[in-house]
Amino acid sequence: MTETLGTTGEFGLIAAVTRGLSRSEDVLVGPGDDAAVVAVPDGRVVITTDLLVEGRHFRQDWSSAYDVGRKAAAQNLADVVAMGARPTALVVGFGGPADLPTAWAVELNQGLADEAELVGASIVGGDTVQSDKIIVSVTAFGSLDGRRPVLRSGARPGDELAFAGRLGWAEAGYAVLTRGFRSPRTVVDAHRRPQPPYADGPRAAIAGASSMCDVSDGLIADLRHIAEASQVVIDVRTPALAVAEPLQAVAAATGLDAMTFVLTGGEDHALVGTFEPADVPDGWTVIGTVAEGNENRPAGTVTVDGELFASPAGHAHFTS
Amino acid sequence: MTETLGTTGEFGLIAAVTRGLSRSEDVLVGPGDDAAVVAVPDGRVVITTDLLVEGRHFRQDWSSAYDVGRKAAAQNLADVVAMGARPTALVVGFGGPADLPTAWAVELNQGLADEAELVGASIVGGDTVQSDKIIVSVTAFGSLDGRRPVLRSGARPGDELAFAGRLGWAEAGYAVLTRGFRSPRTVVDAHRRPQPPYADGPRAAIAGASSMCDVSDGLIADLRHIAEASQVVIDVRTPALAVAEPLQAVAAATGLDAMTFVLTGGEDHALVGTFEPADVPDGWTVIGTVAEGNENRPAGTVTVDGELFASPAGHAHFTS
Repeated sequence: MTETLGTTGEFGLIAAVTRGLSRSEDVLVGPGDDAAVVAVPDGRVVITTDLLVEGRHFRQDWSSAYDVGRKAAAQNLADVVAMGARPTALVVGFGGPADLPTAWAVELNQGLADEAELVGASIVGGDTVQSDKIIVSVTAFGSLDGRRPVLRSGARPGDELAFAGRLGWAEAGYAVLTRGFRSPRTVVDAHRRPQPPYADGPRAAIAGASSMCDVSDGLIADLRHIAEASQVVIDVRTPALAVAEPLQAVAAATGLDAMTFVLTGGEDHALVGTFEPADVPDGWTVIGTVAEGNENRPAGTVTVDGELFASPAGHAHFTS
Repeated sequence: MTETLGTTGEFGLIAAVTRGLSRSEDVLVGPGDDAAVVAVPDGRVVITTDLLVEGRHFRQDWSSAYDVGRKAAAQNLADVVAMGARPTALVVGFGGPADLPTAWAVELNQGLADEAELVGASIVGGDTVQSDKIIVSVTAFGSLDGRRPVLRSGARPGDELAFAGRLGWAEAGYAVLTRGFRSPRTVVDAHRRPQPPYADGPRAAIAGASSMCDVSDGLIADLRHIAEASQVVIDVRTPALAVAEPLQAVAAATGLDAMTFVLTGGEDHALVGTFEPADVPDGWTVIGTVAEGNENRPAGTVTVDGELFASPAGHAHFTS
């Protein structure tokens, strides 16, 4: 008989998922008490949270439980490094139906733990409840280690725009999966398990990034957040954006535009930031410029090769 | 036309719920960036998380959106004070259907914010997604202000057992509501909005509590957590547990046992702790003793008036 959440029970599940969790030196009190206690030596904790719901953020036929765990952790850890911080810990809320195999929850947790381990972070607590659909709530924490946080509001005219990581890969994978295909494997894998450039967040902060965020809604959409918060105009130069071969293959097979994947695809959790020209760190590619607003281009505008960008610019919930 | 999540959209909802949020001096970076930044002057952050799902943790016909917000915040803030910490901040994940009135989400948020304000804490971030049923995920944070955390594992033979807050009220309210009644109003209100004794958590820590937790699963069930973690035997003396008049009224009307409400009812988020006899602080009531385990009563056992307790001892998820 397959063990399910109903037969394992809440406390059995908690025991199963906390068994063997690694614990870094940042974890002062781990799972099992009313709350966890995590060290943040400089007295400031970075906090971000995301909620994933089955059928909306993942599908069991497209992603394994392990993949969902990797992705849920990755999107939160990317937010932490986008502040220039070092991720330290996660807490996880999990809901699932009583007939869900217990192994599903255990594999989800392993995915979360393995992704966290990539950056030296630990799972320090959580909550499990019964729900009709699978729900995964992740809250991630980080330490600034004495640095100032890199906000969206610090971009200045004259800065260069640069990015690290991948753009459009997850969106190309989504385009493939929605059409019933499973290849190219590289983009399908990118949809299932993003690979945020974790080390590039703190690296950018140390180099003096004036603003930074992660690309979760799409490059143009997320740059708008920086342009609005900083009250500047940002121009993206498409010739600087190399379109990788697998994206070109998907575009050719689907009739979609490869550059649209790059400009509007979210969920790869690339990092974008602005820097004084001399400060752009290794591993970051310059793809545009920051300017003052004017009559034709008010502050808050993002342009592509100098033109307003007309295509749908990223994903907003409730409206799709 | 009633505005709904579908017409308001994700960014409209975020703007509506973040408008007018108060922000304490602990909040260094509030909502609107990749992550929030919260001060924890002594370099240790206390973290706890809970997930609430419509139909399981609340019902729209029993509780208003505002009540759900108060309760979701309360149960997390209670976990923070049960560590002896001062709550500082919350983040909130929210899921709801596209046809949910936007006002519901705004009122939920107001309930969360008002409960947080009781203890000087602020909402510093969140996430909103679309989901068939309403989901509320809360993660709460606290500062130990230089104190050691009060764990479940510190109870020692010879300690006295004491509690602060209310026991059995929410359970009596639940008994009333499940039978289709709406009174006594005091217990129905207790079910809708718990009133954890927030100040008693840090007060107990300062007084030297050897162990502490909040009562969320029921007094006996939660004392078992302390008895097991501390490897002691805990005995509860029922004559020390006053049964309030409204609980007696509910018991008389339903044929249920009032003391069972007190011993097994969770969700009032009372605090229970153990203290050296001279250390029990004002506002706490002594209700039992801590002893070593022996052949008849192994460590980890909880007894009531010296006898093993046979009734169902609290709530476990997935199995009800």
